[in-house]
Amino acid sequence: MIKVGIIGSTGYAGQELVRLLLQHKEAEIVWYGSKSYVDQRYADVFGNMVELVDHVCQGDDLVQLSKEVDVIFTATPQGYLASILTEGVLANAKVIDLSADYRIKDVQTYEAWYKIKHQSPQFIKEAVYGLPELNRSKIPGARLIANPGCYPTCSTLSIYPLAKEGVLDMSTLIIDAKSGVSGAGRSGKVANLYCEVNESMKAYGISNHRHTPEIEEQLSYASGEEVKLNFTPHLAPMNRGILVTAYANVKTKITRDEIRNLYETYYQDEYFVRVLKEGIPAETRWVEGSNFVDVNAFLDERTNRVILTGAMDNITKGAAGQAVQNMNLMFGLAENEGLKLVPVFP
Amino acid sequence: MIKVGIIGSTGYAGQELVRLLLQHKEAEIVWYGSKSYVDQRYADVFGNMVELVDHVCQGDDLVQLSKEVDVIFTATPQGYLASILTEGVLANAKVIDLSADYRIKDVQTYEAWYKIKHQSPQFIKEAVYGLPELNRSKIPGARLIANPGCYPTCSTLSIYPLAKEGVLDMSTLIIDAKSGVSGAGRSGKVANLYCEVNESMKAYGISNHRHTPEIEEQLSYASGEEVKLNFTPHLAPMNRGILVTAYANVKTKITRDEIRNLYETYYQDEYFVRVLKEGIPAETRWVEGSNFVDVNAFLDERTNRVILTGAMDNITKGAAGQAVQNMNLMFGLAENEGLKLVPVFP
Amino acid sequence: MIKVGIIGSTGYAGQELVRLLLQHKEAEIVWYGSKSYVDQRYADVFGNMVELVDHVCQGDDLVQLSKEVDVIFTATPQGYLASILTEGVLANAKVIDLSADYRIKDVQTYEAWYKIKHQSPQFIKEAVYGLPELNRSKIPGARLIANPGCYPTCSTLSIYPLAKEGVLDMSTLIIDAKSGVSGAGRSGKVANLYCEVNESMKAYGISNHRHTPEIEEQLSYASGEEVKLNFTPHLAPMNRGILVTAYANVKTKITRDEIRNLYETYYQDEYFVRVLKEGIPAETRWVEGSNFVDVNAFLDERTNRVILTGAMDNITKGAAGQAVQNMNLMFGLAENEGLKLVPVFP
Amino acid sequence: MIKVGIIGSTGYAGQELVRLLLQHKEAEIVWYGSKSYVDQRYADVFGNMVELVDHVCQGDDLVQLSKEVDVIFTATPQGYLASILTEGVLANAKVIDLSADYRIKDVQTYEAWYKIKHQSPQFIKEAVYGLPELNRSKIPGARLIANPGCYPTCSTLSIYPLAKEGVLDMSTLIIDAKSGVSGAGRSGKVANLYCEVNESMKAYGISNHRHTPEIEEQLSYASGEEVKLNFTPHLAPMNRGILVTAYANVKTKITRDEIRNLYETYYQDEYFVRVLKEGIPAETRWVEGSNFVDVNAFLDERTNRVILTGAMDNITKGAAGQAVQNMNLMFGLAENEGLKLVPVFP
Repeated sequence: MIKVGIIGSTGYAGQELVRLLLQHKEAEIVWYGSKSYVDQRYADVFGNMVELVDHVCQGDDLVQLSKEVDVIFTATPQGYLASILTEGVLANAKVIDLSADYRIKDVQTYEAWYKIKHQSPQFIKEAVYGLPELNRSKIPGARLIANPGCYPTCSTLSIYPLAKEGVLDMSTLIIDAKSGVSGAGRSGKVANLYCEVNESMKAYGISNHRHTPEIEEQLSYASGEEVKLNFTPHLAPMNRGILVTAYANVKTKITRDEIRNLYETYYQDEYFVRVLKEGIPAETRWVEGSNFVDVNAFLDERTNRVILTGAMDNITKGAAGQAVQNMNLMFGLAENEGLKLVPVFP
Repeated sequence: MIKVGIIGSTGYAGQELVRLLLQHKEAEIVWYGSKSYVDQRYADVFGNMVELVDHVCQGDDLVQLSKEVDVIFTATPQGYLASILTEGVLANAKVIDLSADYRIKDVQTYEAWYKIKHQSPQFIKEAVYGLPELNRSKIPGARLIANPGCYPTCSTLSIYPLAKEGVLDMSTLIIDAKSGVSGAGRSGKVANLYCEVNESMKAYGISNHRHTPEIEEQLSYASGEEVKLNFTPHLAPMNRGILVTAYANVKTKITRDEIRNLYETYYQDEYFVRVLKEGIPAETRWVEGSNFVDVNAFLDERTNRVILTGAMDNITKGAAGQAVQNMNLMFGLAENEGLKLVPVFP
Repeated sequence: MIKVGIIGSTGYAGQELVRLLLQHKEAEIVWYGSKSYVDQRYADVFGNMVELVDHVCQGDDLVQLSKEVDVIFTATPQGYLASILTEGVLANAKVIDLSADYRIKDVQTYEAWYKIKHQSPQFIKEAVYGLPELNRSKIPGARLIANPGCYPTCSTLSIYPLAKEGVLDMSTLIIDAKSGVSGAGRSGKVANLYCEVNESMKAYGISNHRHTPEIEEQLSYASGEEVKLNFTPHLAPMNRGILVTAYANVKTKITRDEIRNLYETYYQDEYFVRVLKEGIPAETRWVEGSNFVDVNAFLDERTNRVILTGAMDNITKGAAGQAVQNMNLMFGLAENEGLKLVPVFP
Repeated sequence: MIKVGIIGSTGYAGQELVRLLLQHKEAEIVWYGSKSYVDQRYADVFGNMVELVDHVCQGDDLVQLSKEVDVIFTATPQGYLASILTEGVLANAKVIDLSADYRIKDVQTYEAWYKIKHQSPQFIKEAVYGLPELNRSKIPGARLIANPGCYPTCSTLSIYPLAKEGVLDMSTLIIDAKSGVSGAGRSGKVANLYCEVNESMKAYGISNHRHTPEIEEQLSYASGEEVKLNFTPHLAPMNRGILVTAYANVKTKITRDEIRNLYETYYQDEYFVRVLKEGIPAETRWVEGSNFVDVNAFLDERTNRVILTGAMDNITKGAAGQAVQNMNLMFGLAENEGLKLVPVFP
């Protein structure tokens, strides 16, 4: 049984980790870390956990925690883990970080986009970017996983086969993404009140959202060229789900069937990536509560452009589910252990 | 492995059966019955089932089906099963009926409220009302289970301990219930369009909703007297969930602690009924996607009345989850096999 | 032109006042008071007001304000107005208070339910309870209007004709109400975040909600007896709207037609109360954005009980719209001036 | 008083016409046309109209109607008006068509995208495309107005100043739009049921949505070159609202201030177009129920691309409100008569 500690268990991603790990045969949560709810019963914070979790929330003493568990999940604000991570901690326990602290290899890029001084750049190189579909082989041996962002996961997997195959003019790539509100976190801000979000759509972070360099980095690796793109996230009135609609010019002559074949070939062995049938766009309702990413590509011959759609649950495959997928790989379990969740509809 | 057939697998309750049974270790669905989608791939109707279900929808030949499976779930319109059920079918396979056809023991009451002539009253007596928390002992030997209605399940479990103990003046009982829209079914009616339901609350079926006699019958058994009550359901703008708020005068002197003790005693061994802490009303968000019913009782000393709250997922514990719970009991499995689902939040 | 000042213009009710008064031919807002947004442009706080309001938010100097306007609306937390109101203010300007400070005539009842020491009980007697449909004659001469609460407005108007006529056994009265989230205010609380409210229903304030004594007082006047009732509000996932479902035993023999006649007679001259057709329950979708209250009564002969339904927009007729209706009466305008808003659907 | 007839008054756009015209001082609806609800009271179909509309729904005898009114609004399925419009009708009454029948000047383009044979191409040339902000001068004299589509209105107004000024490389233009569900109409389709739409986002009509050629035509006029673009609409879980996010490469060197100046100059005299402050993206919540279009432009210097945002209410400015705006111009009224509606928030 893998002993698990969670720092930040009372946010939405942290709570989703708890949901998933309670249903995981090989893992046991022994430390429910929280900043705001220390000494309160976890089930008093999240009523869905009544009679399922008896624990009381603990603090975030990372050193002590690392002595008591096999793996630590950190679902914490940007910069926090970087400010407290030590070699000693990593020597004691594996760390899967759901924040952005170790995702970007170039520390200056990180600091420029996040407006934070990185406190432990020495761990960046070692950290493995935990997107198993692209990076599977490096995960088992890792001590530190940088769990990908929600938008980067959905964006990268939606675009990857065509980027990798050199089909796209990467300089024309535009990503228009739509997210449910759980991505905005669980702190009491007016902007995230029910009445402010309900019955509305808006773009935010136009041209400066911090997931931009993360997506650019991954697609640069895929395409072998330095990618600069437009990424525009939107807030949609729903709890969960991310929808990505990406656009790019095709630089080589290619048919719909050839595009389809590329997606099917790339993802044929991937349990969590579902390539939809010809003509069916991805929809978030079909992935809710699961670790699936649904993708499909469309070719518009009039404009010689592809429209790539991807849908996933932002706090499952976009955060906690992917983190558990990484944990499974790190501990030699089946990659989908505890993650064979059928999407909940409606 | 229990072989399962579903008649009506393309409604919301039918689809929830599929979701639950796919995650059930001891069951295998071999027949996906449908009226509207025969010969279509099930995963083309419900995109969440892509790569999880390969089957094509079949018709509703109950006799043939009964030869191929161990148990049949019928999630069909009122009156349908009663019109086709035969002794031969019951000799071949167990039947768990999610419709109302065999729930009400008095056929005249059924016909009066449902405005349908009952086509097979000979099976009513044999049918076991499948509310395990009240009727557990009769379920294992049954051939035919009348799976309770959504409102009756939540109402009965919210009120049962006080009704059974004679605490309530049953003539004063009023049930005000609120349901998500999945309870209204999946046919294309204007009244259930997004824009008609969203941003609105309404009562419906005032004084004539067909779940009334079902609740009255169960609470009559519990209280030992003939119960007549007001039941008013409301449509709430959400996918899933039922909330019951029930009111009744207390006829004996009783304290809050005594009421609490009754609930805790009655439900202490019930996995699926969670008695909440003092002062915490039931909320549907904490049970979504699970088979739990959360209940709590409040005593208003000013008016000498209790206010009883109950929350559950209308298509899980209110339909498909309870049906699987019955199946588990009928086949000698752990009652919560395949049903230890942690509620999905948010 | 009536000069208007608003204290608390940056809450939801305050903003609705602005919306209504901008469309009112005889009124002009000259003071946009706010605690949190002083010196910010009002249109920067509420983007719907861009190009419609040029003002900057001002503070809450009530004395100064009273010198500059004809009428002051206070949409402020409970107890605030009572702590600052003076004879001098009332000598300068009329005051329409949307808080509860002067609604309840018995100061001990107020203090017991609100857990607040009343700071200016000397004004309670003078204050007129501003429910025009019941109290119209007293409003024109008033200096101080206690604008009714949202739940009390909808509850009282739904029940009034039968209470007044002595039809009901008032000791059996139970009010089960459902409100949209705007009623919870615009401060950044976790409980009101989108993801906490969406896809959920819950009761709150069971047996202790502060609108209870206000409803009891009004229905006591109507029925001529001291009324004690159960009032249970619920939070529903929608922006606007209140639905009331009330239950009471009938104490005299009465037919459906007689009940209907009572409602139609009582409300035949009321522009804002619409008695629906036989058998049509009130729905909040039909009143959104308007000052209407839709009501309808149902008689359940089985239980000898009436079920009374009422629907209105909680921040229009339930707050700002009713306040403008009071202003119209106070200043000798047509009662529906600026309020002939057609409900917005969908 | 302008006498008005509406064909298709029982769809969402038709009903919005009724809402707006009831609040219009100079217009009176005398004919409520409907296919599905003939002989039913209009207020029985739309409960918001109780006590506001006494009329019974009539059929769609266009010739007779044209003799009884000054102007006819047709909110009908594509192809319908074209199949019944005659010179005689146009001689009797002005026609404002909310369908697409006369929007596209090239009949082959219309037929190719709409898959319909045009039944009255002789009126296409005469029809004036009723986007007043671009085409104001031609509207007063017109007999037949082709009222623009919802997406084309929001898209064109969001992009127009930069297209007109030659700032954009029009071959790079991509429009990603998000619409509320009222745009999908009021017929009972499974795809538009509450549970199918709620908690989900999806793209639809990828590369073949019929508003594409309409947008292309308008932007071709603006830019003076033939425009081909990608237009991808999405369905968002909300009743009303369209959000447009458009992307294009800048072909000339331009600064943020210069872009801002262009928008402010172009729209300074437009009552219904609001250019937002620097850095504020358009949000649909701020325009709900009104005839405003909010626009704002962003320059991403990293990619040399602009991101253009626009928000409006799809059934007001996107349909009925714009139609009334056209009526006002045709009859010599103030353009915003009856349309100075303050957006309803929340």
